[in-house]
Amino acid sequence: MSFEGPLQRLVDELARLPGVGRKSAQRIAFHLLSVDETDARRLAQAIIDLRDRVGYCRRCFNVTSSDECAICRDPRRDPAVVCVVERPQDVVVMERTHEFHGRYHVLGGALSPISGIGPNQLRIPELRRRVAEEDIEELIVATNPTVEGDATAMYISREFKPLGVRVTRLASGLPVGGDLDYADEITLGRALAGRVEI
Amino acid sequence: MSFEGPLQRLVDELARLPGVGRKSAQRIAFHLLSVDETDARRLAQAIIDLRDRVGYCRRCFNVTSSDECAICRDPRRDPAVVCVVERPQDVVVMERTHEFHGRYHVLGGALSPISGIGPNQLRIPELRRRVAEEDIEELIVATNPTVEGDATAMYISREFKPLGVRVTRLASGLPVGGDLDYADEITLGRALAGRVEI
Repeated sequence: MSFEGPLQRLVDELARLPGVGRKSAQRIAFHLLSVDETDARRLAQAIIDLRDRVGYCRRCFNVTSSDECAICRDPRRDPAVVCVVERPQDVVVMERTHEFHGRYHVLGGALSPISGIGPNQLRIPELRRRVAEEDIEELIVATNPTVEGDATAMYISREFKPLGVRVTRLASGLPVGGDLDYADEITLGRALAGRVEI
Repeated sequence: MSFEGPLQRLVDELARLPGVGRKSAQRIAFHLLSVDETDARRLAQAIIDLRDRVGYCRRCFNVTSSDECAICRDPRRDPAVVCVVERPQDVVVMERTHEFHGRYHVLGGALSPISGIGPNQLRIPELRRRVAEEDIEELIVATNPTVEGDATAMYISREFKPLGVRVTRLASGLPVGGDLDYADEITLGRALAGRVEI
């Protein structure tokens, strides 16, 4: 036996969310049944608003509730430097450093031939158009330090350097505050190869 | 920097759910942004339906979308035996055994003087009314085998035995398929005290 109609339907919908199993789905459903009705409705409304009002920036494909995202609209941001990231979440992570003052370009993933993701499945054609139309001097590739992220960085470097754009990649190395003992050998190897004069 | 308006609001709402941290909330929000619009709206609608259509059974306080729950309405269920559980979820767990054919009574929790939960914060007055009005012969107390659950069972036994009702409690002991090595000493002690002739 499972629950009656509407309760079971909510459990089923919740269990489809990433990282939510059947047990958590049940727990969340009962939570939503026991909280103030306005709280539950506010969550439902937030989901509806998300789909009604949030889309992607037509320039950089960051998430936004306008036509262009707040970063692209900001006249203080340097349009000559573009940080290329995999996902909109990465924009927020980069912004937290307060060290980057250019614009972004969200690829929507990384190259992965095994999963059938080539340059045209990502927003690489759109990046090419931006490089042709905007005065972009440097692309800082901030894809993840994974096989796919590295391959994407290499691809972008090969494609855009010939167009006269400087292409750089985030440094790999030891995490600040980390311990040599805990660094894996690949990270340590990269830190060694990328050593800097002091 | 956090996300723009509606996205951040959804992340905030999701992060209030039990077992959902800020990272999972973000992940779920981006998932809801990327899935088919109908999928996202179906989840919102399921939450609204839950609050519009699901309530508590007026007899046993199980969740239901009717006035009385499916179990209380079922004429094949024995009205003389009532299984007393803490939460509506426990009804589903009991039903999965296919071994119980009576009705239920959902207390809405367990006695916990520390948290200010006394008999009147639970549905014990309602249980008293049922015992007075219905022909109940046995109360099977299936509260959790915890301090609070045990205290609740003791309380129910003391209150309802004088009214001529048989009060029983689920057996404590070794989980079937378990291993003596892994049993904690309290469980093992109870299994010993509750040993049965073979």
